[in-house]
Amino acid sequence: MNSVRVNGLNVQAALETIAAIKADKSLARFEFRARNRWIDGGENRSTIKDFYGAGREDCSRMSAFEFTNGEPPVLLGNNEGANPVEFLLHALAGCVTTTFILHAMARGITVRELRTELEGDIDLQGLLGLDDAVSPGYEQIRIRMHVKADCPEKDLDDLLAYTQQHSPVCNTVCRPVPVIIERAMD
Amino acid sequence: MNSVRVNGLNVQAALETIAAIKADKSLARFEFRARNRWIDGGENRSTIKDFYGAGREDCSRMSAFEFTNGEPPVLLGNNEGANPVEFLLHALAGCVTTTFILHAMARGITVRELRTELEGDIDLQGLLGLDDAVSPGYEQIRIRMHVKADCPEKDLDDLLAYTQQHSPVCNTVCRPVPVIIERAMD
Repeated sequence: MNSVRVNGLNVQAALETIAAIKADKSLARFEFRARNRWIDGGENRSTIKDFYGAGREDCSRMSAFEFTNGEPPVLLGNNEGANPVEFLLHALAGCVTTTFILHAMARGITVRELRTELEGDIDLQGLLGLDDAVSPGYEQIRIRMHVKADCPEKDLDDLLAYTQQHSPVCNTVCRPVPVIIERAMD
Repeated sequence: MNSVRVNGLNVQAALETIAAIKADKSLARFEFRARNRWIDGGENRSTIKDFYGAGREDCSRMSAFEFTNGEPPVLLGNNEGANPVEFLLHALAGCVTTTFILHAMARGITVRELRTELEGDIDLQGLLGLDDAVSPGYEQIRIRMHVKADCPEKDLDDLLAYTQQHSPVCNTVCRPVPVIIERAMD
């Protein structure tokens, strides 16, 4: 088996995935899942394990990942964990990074280093319902990317623009995505 | 000091926060931050520690929170961690939960139990750039909430609708939020 790797990704496996999806588009459909339980105050915990994708239930994870949301004292908590809007920045950072690395591989660009710094602005008047004119979510998120790679600067700029357009989390934040909440009658 | 708690939240501290923000709206402005470093392939790691809010730099955290993004084998990884789109579900679950608990407290509703299950649909043709008509992000996210509380069903439905409108992460997902990515010249 060909195991040539670029940026730590198996090139042959990536090509086979793309060929399989081109032959059967239903293989591209994924359903990701999380389960969360409130603990107390601003503390709650998620477990993440199973998902559906590539035409079947995934069973590659022996145990679940667990993550705890908390709040700092200024937001009535005890720093039990990072808070949800901070986890959103982590998700966004990771997705932009992985999308960049993936499409760098597709273009034959070897990345030596990639770091990002994120900042996001929130006005708490929205969450608290003190001013209906204030959106509860992020007003804007800024990402500063430090990248070293074996290609011209212009190719990095092109790749970054492509990444911004194709990152799933970035696209979920930039585009209005419907969230449906229903209460279980149990 | 009055330390009456409802749902684990200090009622007096919440009232003081709201009074302070009403007197000086600039106290409601927060800037959250994350720093991320690519490790290899689909693996990268964020550190989250400092933020600005309530008129000053927060210094309540002695050490940083660290979270690792990874990918399952079907997405060319080794399950080094949950993946970024799963972390987004964790952030959304936690934010809806904390917003619900906070506004339940404000309404004098004691919550006994709160659990959520989330599902989100993604078509990988978007990420891979195989079809420009396919959005790379979530098409839809569904949240099923199990809640037990000491109030009529109708009050829970009202509170849930209010929560959906005021959760920062839910609002960030439902509304188009600008993400600005710039490359540092270092």
